[in-house]
Amino acid sequence: MIVALAGGVGGARLAVGLAQVLSPRQLAVVVNTGDDFEHHGLTVCPDIDTVAYTLAGLNNPRTGWGRVDETWNFMQALGALGGETWFQLGDRDLAMHVLRTQALRSGMPLSQITRQLSRRLGLRHSLIPMSDTPVRTRVRVAGGELDFQDYFVRQRCKPRVHGFRFAGAARAQVPAPLAEIMTNGRVDAVVICPSNPYVSVAPILAVPAIRRWLRERTFPVVAVSPIVAGAAIKGPAAKMMRELGAPVSCEGIASHYGRRVDGWVIDRADAPAEARIAASGRAVAVADTLMTDVAASKALALDVLRFARALAKSRAR
Amino acid sequence: MIVALAGGVGGARLAVGLAQVLSPRQLAVVVNTGDDFEHHGLTVCPDIDTVAYTLAGLNNPRTGWGRVDETWNFMQALGALGGETWFQLGDRDLAMHVLRTQALRSGMPLSQITRQLSRRLGLRHSLIPMSDTPVRTRVRVAGGELDFQDYFVRQRCKPRVHGFRFAGAARAQVPAPLAEIMTNGRVDAVVICPSNPYVSVAPILAVPAIRRWLRERTFPVVAVSPIVAGAAIKGPAAKMMRELGAPVSCEGIASHYGRRVDGWVIDRADAPAEARIAASGRAVAVADTLMTDVAASKALALDVLRFARALAKSRAR
Repeated sequence: MIVALAGGVGGARLAVGLAQVLSPRQLAVVVNTGDDFEHHGLTVCPDIDTVAYTLAGLNNPRTGWGRVDETWNFMQALGALGGETWFQLGDRDLAMHVLRTQALRSGMPLSQITRQLSRRLGLRHSLIPMSDTPVRTRVRVAGGELDFQDYFVRQRCKPRVHGFRFAGAARAQVPAPLAEIMTNGRVDAVVICPSNPYVSVAPILAVPAIRRWLRERTFPVVAVSPIVAGAAIKGPAAKMMRELGAPVSCEGIASHYGRRVDGWVIDRADAPAEARIAASGRAVAVADTLMTDVAASKALALDVLRFARALAKSRAR
Repeated sequence: MIVALAGGVGGARLAVGLAQVLSPRQLAVVVNTGDDFEHHGLTVCPDIDTVAYTLAGLNNPRTGWGRVDETWNFMQALGALGGETWFQLGDRDLAMHVLRTQALRSGMPLSQITRQLSRRLGLRHSLIPMSDTPVRTRVRVAGGELDFQDYFVRQRCKPRVHGFRFAGAARAQVPAPLAEIMTNGRVDAVVICPSNPYVSVAPILAVPAIRRWLRERTFPVVAVSPIVAGAAIKGPAAKMMRELGAPVSCEGIASHYGRRVDGWVIDRADAPAEARIAASGRAVAVADTLMTDVAASKALALDVLRFARALAKSRAR
């Protein structure tokens, strides 16, 4: 069994590939909830929705968030009534937030809600939020902290980041299905998807039970670099690395994760870095990591799984 | 100053007429909240919205509820995700419910929310909910009670009614602006709009402070019959009257209200009933009450105001 750790778009795309080649029993996708937030009284879970919509083929490929063939009449009416419009909620997308919020208020755990909604979207594979209790990413900036969506959407990642805090992480409750996976002895590898290391993957790794589980692992952790040729495919990862003084490269990413990752999958464009990363004691595989379509996602997933299997074998020896 | 008591469509149409001929200082429309309900975690106020949309010219004239030029993508997505779809919420309409619910949760009184939202819709006249605390109409049927919207929308008024209960009415808190009007000595007349007597007007009259104010009135109460030629223009009023053993006629309505109404405005189609209602001690005016367009609403409003003024004069003598 493979457990994939995923944030938004990059995570969603690799999840699509993994879901193409692994059965529902062979794959669980653990999704970041650090960028969840309450907006207009609704609980919005951007990463869960991006992964769910992408797996369902309902995602908007242009924006990287929200649904394809979306309409915006709610948002327009909301704006006319004086409501805040900096975070766009599409008419169809809104159904997820309304149902989720209603279920959360009734006391249902987020993991169970996610399971129900993703099944309704037609997903067969498990999407599991990293926590059933709220964890909220705060961005440290000059003079204070910003809520993640305030930084990410309202301020378009403009403020220079000084660091991050994952409020609620220390007491985060791992969902029951994830706790089961962490103790069932069936996990062959953990795959860290090419998601932002600071705001997509770090919140997952900040959940104490997950951190402990990975520290005591008997399986390999394999990661796909979100940095290709010195840039992020999407989002502010490269800008954040620069602002935090990390080299914007797959070596920079590898050194950020250190011993938490056993094997790196880097893009062909970065093949020259292979030896340097290997020199730091990590295994390295070179692959096409861009996932421009489902076929590319599937091919990368096969590469990642082959690599993970090889690492697991060498560990077993 | 005129205070109009209004439910849904009939109330909204007369309110439009009154707003055409009275300044914002001369008119307050007090709206039924008995059919408000919580749905999908949102507080929906159907009568407030119908009156607000109608005054703003945004109402859907075909359905009698919701907004014109509406889209239904939220509802469709909600249904696909397993949500309940028996109560239709349009994409644009949803903005009202989301903003209202958010403001209610923040502790803002419904009356203040209604004021803000109706101003944003462009209204100049005051819409005041009958209560700032929840009052919920329950329909007594064989074997128990139904929530109003369950009876009205989900069961399409099919169950035979045995009576009504207005849960929360006994401790209903009249909004501050209505309390001010009830004590400012400026009210010349109260107009009961042609709304359902049982489920639109009765909840308003069940609010203790309003009931007391009307009982001790020094101004006339004028009502427009919602029954014309033995039928209701819209909605289940006639069916309810039949099931409760009341004659389905404007006389039946007049006897239902008894001494709570001083003067009746009945439709030309019911002119023969004029003498019989007058014989019971009520003043009667005959008018065109159908309000098929804004001009007709305005004409009826002028008739109602003329009648009310005459009654006020004869009271003063």
